[in-house]
Amino acid sequence: MGSRYTIGLDYGTNSVRALIVDVADGREIAAAIWVYEHGHQGVILDKDPNVARQHPGDYLKGAELTIVEALATAAKSVPGFSPAQVIGIGVDTTGSTPMPVDADGIPLALSDKYKDDPAAQAWLWKDHTGWAEAAEITKLAHDIRPQYVAVIGGVYSSEWFYSKILRCLRTRPDVFDAAYSWIELSDFVPAAMTDTLAPSKFTAGICAAGHKAMYSAAWGGYPDKEFLAKLDPKLADLRDRLTPRVKAVDSAAGGLSPAWAKKTGLSEGIPVAIGAFDCHLGAVGAGVAPGVLVKVLGTSTCDISVQPNNVKLADVPGVCGIVDGSVLPGYFGLEAGQSAVGDIFNWFVEYVNPTGLGHVELTAEASKLKPGESGLLALDWNNGNRTVLVDQRLTGLLLGQTLYTTPAEIYRALVEATAFGALTIINRFEEYGVKIDTVVNCGGIAEKNAFIMQTYADVTGRTMKVSRSAQTPALGSAVAAAVVAGAHKDFASAIAAMTGLKDKVYEPNPAAHAVYKELYALYHTLHDAFGTEKGQTNLFGVMKKLIDIRTAARG
Amino acid sequence: MGSRYTIGLDYGTNSVRALIVDVADGREIAAAIWVYEHGHQGVILDKDPNVARQHPGDYLKGAELTIVEALATAAKSVPGFSPAQVIGIGVDTTGSTPMPVDADGIPLALSDKYKDDPAAQAWLWKDHTGWAEAAEITKLAHDIRPQYVAVIGGVYSSEWFYSKILRCLRTRPDVFDAAYSWIELSDFVPAAMTDTLAPSKFTAGICAAGHKAMYSAAWGGYPDKEFLAKLDPKLADLRDRLTPRVKAVDSAAGGLSPAWAKKTGLSEGIPVAIGAFDCHLGAVGAGVAPGVLVKVLGTSTCDISVQPNNVKLADVPGVCGIVDGSVLPGYFGLEAGQSAVGDIFNWFVEYVNPTGLGHVELTAEASKLKPGESGLLALDWNNGNRTVLVDQRLTGLLLGQTLYTTPAEIYRALVEATAFGALTIINRFEEYGVKIDTVVNCGGIAEKNAFIMQTYADVTGRTMKVSRSAQTPALGSAVAAAVVAGAHKDFASAIAAMTGLKDKVYEPNPAAHAVYKELYALYHTLHDAFGTEKGQTNLFGVMKKLIDIRTAARG
Repeated sequence: MGSRYTIGLDYGTNSVRALIVDVADGREIAAAIWVYEHGHQGVILDKDPNVARQHPGDYLKGAELTIVEALATAAKSVPGFSPAQVIGIGVDTTGSTPMPVDADGIPLALSDKYKDDPAAQAWLWKDHTGWAEAAEITKLAHDIRPQYVAVIGGVYSSEWFYSKILRCLRTRPDVFDAAYSWIELSDFVPAAMTDTLAPSKFTAGICAAGHKAMYSAAWGGYPDKEFLAKLDPKLADLRDRLTPRVKAVDSAAGGLSPAWAKKTGLSEGIPVAIGAFDCHLGAVGAGVAPGVLVKVLGTSTCDISVQPNNVKLADVPGVCGIVDGSVLPGYFGLEAGQSAVGDIFNWFVEYVNPTGLGHVELTAEASKLKPGESGLLALDWNNGNRTVLVDQRLTGLLLGQTLYTTPAEIYRALVEATAFGALTIINRFEEYGVKIDTVVNCGGIAEKNAFIMQTYADVTGRTMKVSRSAQTPALGSAVAAAVVAGAHKDFASAIAAMTGLKDKVYEPNPAAHAVYKELYALYHTLHDAFGTEKGQTNLFGVMKKLIDIRTAARG
Repeated sequence: MGSRYTIGLDYGTNSVRALIVDVADGREIAAAIWVYEHGHQGVILDKDPNVARQHPGDYLKGAELTIVEALATAAKSVPGFSPAQVIGIGVDTTGSTPMPVDADGIPLALSDKYKDDPAAQAWLWKDHTGWAEAAEITKLAHDIRPQYVAVIGGVYSSEWFYSKILRCLRTRPDVFDAAYSWIELSDFVPAAMTDTLAPSKFTAGICAAGHKAMYSAAWGGYPDKEFLAKLDPKLADLRDRLTPRVKAVDSAAGGLSPAWAKKTGLSEGIPVAIGAFDCHLGAVGAGVAPGVLVKVLGTSTCDISVQPNNVKLADVPGVCGIVDGSVLPGYFGLEAGQSAVGDIFNWFVEYVNPTGLGHVELTAEASKLKPGESGLLALDWNNGNRTVLVDQRLTGLLLGQTLYTTPAEIYRALVEATAFGALTIINRFEEYGVKIDTVVNCGGIAEKNAFIMQTYADVTGRTMKVSRSAQTPALGSAVAAAVVAGAHKDFASAIAAMTGLKDKVYEPNPAAHAVYKELYALYHTLHDAFGTEKGQTNLFGVMKKLIDIRTAARG
């Protein structure tokens, strides 16, 4: 018998990727990528900057195109390769990205009537229109069901499932009423490929349900109807139309349907694993384990760790979720994150657009600067703050500009701000007993930008390691597919066989770390002054201290 | 007898201008401009962003070149024009811009030995290297001579005379020791043109001495030697080598020297008025009077008003100076200012340099936005804050960025920030009994940018008028020259004859003003939080309030 392969499908904010992986050693033999065709790079925008939607048709078209292209590439590059050697598919996606569906489980936006209606599209993770609804849900939970939000950091986010559905109900009741139910993107793709979209067959993943929809075995599944009815009676009714079947990624949603087998050339009936979020399967692809923090660095960041589920764990304030089995069976999955990282750098390059300077040039210039030399300090809140403030109504800040401040100095300040945000998360984990011994980074930024990785090491004072794979979420999906296809007996052995680290690691520079400790103290002051109700903060020294640091840095 | 003319020489940060004016009606018949040839656009920089120097040779070369060119232009455009019809010269300059001179009054930098030595150049107004010395002078004055700083806003600035000289003494004692004395640019040019640089003949202007060197008849001239000796004994010795002759702009420094008459083609012996700062003579050229605030809008801004000197006036905290006769004989001159206005917009266009967008394009885009719509708020402190905080160690701040913030939105926020800074000055004047009924703007920004003028009207809630002349400081210098040449009996009649306003005025839009009142409250919160030791400020609501305003603005 020859090699066996699985396919990982990775749905990002702007594009979908298919990766074909050898289940024996994790070798990535072929990949294909497709940028969604609706909106601006796949995102449907509005003059309201809170709006971010996607067309569900892009998800289906993207799966077909990338699988077909990746198979063709594999056939060219691997002698004797046959699609019949592919034994399973795994799927990871952005989230919470829910969409309204009809009584057959088909997204409303796939109908002629709703195809151009923004309210009927998938509500992309970074859609923040439901901020008022999120605050309402948070308040209600604190009042009558504190347990619901205790495990998700104490605050229910505008990025999440019910905030978006309630927002739709309030502002577009016609669309809400036309929908039979709402499903997550991470559940939609596996169900569509296995012909299990119909409510009688549909299975949801614990990752999305647990982290974004307050689902827990501890209180019998989704939030109870009394709670939901206080938000809106129609939301309580909707609970009956959410699937009772919720499983982890070591289960299959079903077997590949004849239609999808025909479209792709894959074998009918091969298992498609239950879907999960990109960061969770990215953590799997990066070798997550207790003591390891995996940072999936993309447009935003997910920070994932796990702790054995047989030890009681404190609720960690501001951490997005602690869900049993959401990353690995047998472990609590802990999810934190930064609402924007690559997106902030992209904003600076694409929107501010300093002449002639792209990421490569700005990185080259920024890397020549010394810590503190620019006198700049930024808050990394251009897209709000997910952890530890869980507040989407925070915005960016840049401080310390002179008449000579350069784009490279600003770029470096933005990079440093995201590093300070990363350190804030690590500190919060450790304050609540989740020790972080090792940081493994993955995603394009970790892969391509040594300057950013070194800055993260210098700021956090920790060694930065980088996942061997450049496509960790897709690899993690392929690992899940290998488990559900029976190629490995469990996740531990699949991870050991299929994932690894790069040789190159980034050690903190003690001199740089010393300066960054001073800068982080100022960041922390701004963070608490603008981000918390502690208020009563003395900011008078901030600009002057930055100038002192700048003077010292310039020597 | 035909028309009579005077020449106003206006020394800006980057260039010098000569303007030939008809003394009968203020008609500007010819002008010429020359950009200084040393450094970056006339400014000698360093890796330390506090450094800004100029080469004194540029001042002399600039006077000659621009006078000759302006006379040639006049000869072409006015039939029968003769240089003999020019009856006087007035001079205005930036300041405090002191330079070390030898025992003959010649700048050290004009010698071979010192021509390339940064410490021997003119220390341009915006050189902030003496910030520690400024703090030391401020503290000493508060301890033993509070009267010295009470009339200059309570804080001695790093931009001023003694801060720079003491800085030179501390860091380059060789240059200090090589200098016989130090003179201001506004005194250097008239003295050079009238051959009165030698200490036995040299006369200083009350404008620079009173506003920047703590000179007052109330305490016998310059600060006493006991005070200066506590800073450094050599500074006390220097007092003996500062001229005892200090006069206002209605006196002549002398008559044009034979050498300068020959170089320029002007008549030997015509009077050259005592020099003053550009903003003070700009106020004269804009028709300053009690109740009128003249804003000279350039790279930085000077805000000038006058009050009769027979009525006692309270010290106004944070106002740079209240000096008898510094603007008009018989009036206290009140000087406030913003450390950077045009310089901030120039920084954004030239340093950040958003692709393809200059001031014209950014203004066009920014003017389409509604107040509050961007969700941005800035502090206009990229070059410190002159009034009312008098603190050069403050820096810029931009707050409210999202992932979609555009260059035009940032540009508008920067414009608004300077308008909020302008309102802060007006409010401070009025709190201390200096009523501001009318605001007259002058300078290139007032002339060319209707959007900025309208924003100032909307933010301040006051009608913005614009000086008829586009070159008000040069016109004010020509007015002074007309007075010293005897063409008018006093400043009041010279101003009435030679200056005026444009027909176009900018009335505040009530709806816009209402939004700006909300934004100004937030600006004021940031201003006090980062700029004052009151400290203990609650900033938690700032970002959210901005989003509320943004939401309302977008409708």
